[in-house]
Amino acid sequence: MKTVYITRREHFNAAHKLWREDWSEEKNEEVFGKCSNKNWHGHNFEIFVTVKGAPSEDTGFVINLKDLSKIIKDLVVEPLDHRNLNLDVPFLAGKLASTENMVIEIWKLIEEPIRQAGGELCRIKLVETENNYVEYYGGAEPY
Amino acid sequence: MKTVYITRREHFNAAHKLWREDWSEEKNEEVFGKCSNKNWHGHNFEIFVTVKGAPSEDTGFVINLKDLSKIIKDLVVEPLDHRNLNLDVPFLAGKLASTENMVIEIWKLIEEPIRQAGGELCRIKLVETENNYVEYYGGAEPY
Amino acid sequence: MKTVYITRREHFNAAHKLWREDWSEEKNEEVFGKCSNKNWHGHNFEIFVTVKGAPSEDTGFVINLKDLSKIIKDLVVEPLDHRNLNLDVPFLAGKLASTENMVIEIWKLIEEPIRQAGGELCRIKLVETENNYVEYYGGAEPY
Amino acid sequence: MKTVYITRREHFNAAHKLWREDWSEEKNEEVFGKCSNKNWHGHNFEIFVTVKGAPSEDTGFVINLKDLSKIIKDLVVEPLDHRNLNLDVPFLAGKLASTENMVIEIWKLIEEPIRQAGGELCRIKLVETENNYVEYYGGAEPY
Amino acid sequence: MKTVYITRREHFNAAHKLWREDWSEEKNEEVFGKCSNKNWHGHNFEIFVTVKGAPSEDTGFVINLKDLSKIIKDLVVEPLDHRNLNLDVPFLAGKLASTENMVIEIWKLIEEPIRQAGGELCRIKLVETENNYVEYYGGAEPY
Amino acid sequence: MKTVYITRREHFNAAHKLWREDWSEEKNEEVFGKCSNKNWHGHNFEIFVTVKGAPSEDTGFVINLKDLSKIIKDLVVEPLDHRNLNLDVPFLAGKLASTENMVIEIWKLIEEPIRQAGGELCRIKLVETENNYVEYYGGAEPY
Repeated sequence: MKTVYITRREHFNAAHKLWREDWSEEKNEEVFGKCSNKNWHGHNFEIFVTVKGAPSEDTGFVINLKDLSKIIKDLVVEPLDHRNLNLDVPFLAGKLASTENMVIEIWKLIEEPIRQAGGELCRIKLVETENNYVEYYGGAEPY
Repeated sequence: MKTVYITRREHFNAAHKLWREDWSEEKNEEVFGKCSNKNWHGHNFEIFVTVKGAPSEDTGFVINLKDLSKIIKDLVVEPLDHRNLNLDVPFLAGKLASTENMVIEIWKLIEEPIRQAGGELCRIKLVETENNYVEYYGGAEPY
Repeated sequence: MKTVYITRREHFNAAHKLWREDWSEEKNEEVFGKCSNKNWHGHNFEIFVTVKGAPSEDTGFVINLKDLSKIIKDLVVEPLDHRNLNLDVPFLAGKLASTENMVIEIWKLIEEPIRQAGGELCRIKLVETENNYVEYYGGAEPY
Repeated sequence: MKTVYITRREHFNAAHKLWREDWSEEKNEEVFGKCSNKNWHGHNFEIFVTVKGAPSEDTGFVINLKDLSKIIKDLVVEPLDHRNLNLDVPFLAGKLASTENMVIEIWKLIEEPIRQAGGELCRIKLVETENNYVEYYGGAEPY
Repeated sequence: MKTVYITRREHFNAAHKLWREDWSEEKNEEVFGKCSNKNWHGHNFEIFVTVKGAPSEDTGFVINLKDLSKIIKDLVVEPLDHRNLNLDVPFLAGKLASTENMVIEIWKLIEEPIRQAGGELCRIKLVETENNYVEYYGGAEPY
Repeated sequence: MKTVYITRREHFNAAHKLWREDWSEEKNEEVFGKCSNKNWHGHNFEIFVTVKGAPSEDTGFVINLKDLSKIIKDLVVEPLDHRNLNLDVPFLAGKLASTENMVIEIWKLIEEPIRQAGGELCRIKLVETENNYVEYYGGAEPY
C-alpha cells in the first residue's frame, strides 16, 4: 500500500499566560519567565495537521482537504482564534496553556472526526513563534 | 551625497484587544469584530526600523546596527514584549491599541535617540500577522 | 496629519500563458520563453494592497481591514482564484497576462470601492514567485 | 553507522486541474471544488528530496548536492516546469493530477538514479501552497 | 504614463569581515564587534533589483526578466557568489565590505547595462540576514 | 506516556570552505565546486534542536525552552557564530566542514547537557541555504 502523508495549515491568534495559582508570583516568574506576565501576552499560532493513508483511486486524495480544513476550523480555530487560552477555552480549562498541553488536547478533539472523514491523524505541529514549535504523534514515538 | 537606507528587525509577543469603554459590547463587536474579545487575544509582532544617511567613510555604516538594535530593544521591545498593550504600556495608555496608533507612538519614542546615535529615522513597519502590516514615515507621504 | 500606510495580503492560484496570437510559435518562444507554453502553466499569486490615511480617532483605523479584505476578495480573488487568466477573466480579456498588466487592471477595479470605504489606495504589490514581483502606485512614481 | 539525512529543494510552476472525464461537471465540482475549473489553474510547486546515508570519509557528503540537484532538475523540473500536468507530462498521463499521485510517480523516476549516485532516497515532500503539502516515503510508514 | 516597478531576486553566499588595517585589533573589535573576526564569517545574501518603466504594448513587460536576471547573474552573482568580499572582488577592493558600500558599488555596475536593456534601475535591496538589510536608490531619497 | 517533541531554533553566521589539503586544487574544484574557493565563502546557518519527552505535570513543559536555548547558545552559537568553521572551531578541527559532519559533532556536544536538563535530544536540523539542509537523529534511522 502506498501511504502518503498530507498536511493542512491553519492559524489562530490568541492570548495566554503560563501561570500556576498555587505558586507565588516569584516562583511563577522563576519558572515561566516573561510568559508569566499577569496581564497576558499572545502569539500568532500556526497549526499543521498531518493525515496519512493511501490515495483513493477515485479521487487521488488521502483525504479531501476541504473536509480536513473544515474539521480544523470548526474544532480548533473557532474555539481558539482571538481567544484567551486560559479563560475562554473549555478543553484547556484547568490546564497549563503550554504548547505541549495544547497539542495533546487538540489531538483528542480531531482524531475521531478525521477518522470519520476517512483519514488517520498522525501528526500535529503547533508553531508558537519562528523560534519554537512542538510536534505530537498521539503519543507514538517515530524518532 | 549617497543616501542609503538600513533596516533592523526586532520582534515582540503581546496581548491586546480593540475595545472602547464608551461603546456597548454590540458596538465594539460590530466595529472591531473578533479583535474586541473581552479576554484579549495576541500576536507575534515584528518591527522593522529604517534609518537613512550616507555611509560613514570611517566605518562604511549609516548607523552601527548594534546601536540601532539597542535603541529598539530598550525603548520598544522591553516595554512591549510579553505585555498587554492595553494595560501594561504607559505610552499606549488611553489609546486604542491598533497597529496604526502603535507606530505613531513608537516613532515618538525612538526618533530622537536615533538622531543622537547619528541616524535619521525614516520608516517604521509593524507586522501584526502574515496578512497585515502598517508603515509610518513620521507623517510624511512618500507615496 | 499623521498619515499611516496599512497593507492587506490576499492570494489566489491561477493559470496563464504569455502568448500573442499574431506572433509565430517561434517568436512567442523567443520573447516569452517557457512562459509561452501552449498548454499553460500557473502560479500561487500573492497580492498586497496598501491604503493610506490618518487613523480615525474613533477606531484607530486608517481603514477597517474587514472592509479592505472584503473588497479584495470580492473584486480580485473571486474572479482570479483557480481561474485561467487568459480565458476566464473579463477584465484581462485581450490583454497580455503579464503581472505588469494585471496590477494596472486590478488598480482600476479597487480604487473607487476603497475610496467609498473611506481609504485611499496607494500601492498594489503582486508577487508571482519568490523571485519576482511588481508594484504599482496608480502611475505615480515615488522612486 | 552515523546516518545523516540531506535534503535538496527545487521548484517548478505548473498548471493543472482535478477533473474526471467519466464524471459530470456537477460531480467534478462537488468533489474537487474550485480545483475542477475546466480552464485550469496553477501553482508554484516546491519539491524537497531527502537522501540518507553515512557521510563519506573522503568528502564529508552523504551525496554530492550537485549530483542530487542535477537528478531532480533533469527528471522532475524539466518535465514539469511551465507545463500542464494533465496534458504535457508522460508520467502523469491518465492519472488524477493530485499532489498525492505526483509524489508517488516522482519517487519511481528518481529512486534508481539516486541509488546510482550512491544515495538512498527516503522522502519526497511536495508543497503546493503555503497551506498544504504532501510527504511520501516510498510507501513506508515512519509515523 | 503607467509606471510599474518590477523586482527580481537573486542570491549569493559569501565570506567577509569588517576590518580596518589602520586600526588596532581592539579598535576594530570595539566598532565592528563580532564582524571583525580575523578569520572571516559569512552570509547568504539576497539581492532584489527593481526596474521601473511603462509596460511595453508589445510584450506587457517593463523589462524582460530573462534579461534582468542575466545582468544580475553576470555582473553581481558571478563575481560575488562563493567568494571572499574583501579579497576576491575587484570592485570592492580597498573598501569596507559593509552592505551599505556594497549596494553603492553594485548600482554602478548594473545601472548602464539595465538601461541598455531598456529599463531604468531604481532600487537595490540587499538582505544580509533575516534581521537586517539595506536599500539604495542611486542616491535619491524617496522617503 | 504522551511523548511530545519540542524544537528550538537558533542561528549563526559563519565562513567555511570545503577543501582537502591532500588533494590538488583541480581535484578540490572537481569534487567541491564553488565551495572549494580558497578564500572562503559563508552562510547564515539555522539550527533546529528537537527534544522529546512527556510534558511535566508541574510545568506543562518537555523541557524549559530557556534552558534549551542556553545550551544551544553556549555550546553551538558561541563557538560558531561569526567564526571560520575550518580555522576557529576546536570541535571541527581536522574535519571536512560539511553540514553532515557538523551535525554529528554538534550532537556530541549537546546530547549530555540536554539530558542533564531533563530532556532527550532526538533530532538536529541544520539549514545552510533555503535550498539545502541536513537532519541527524544521533545515528538512528526513523525513516
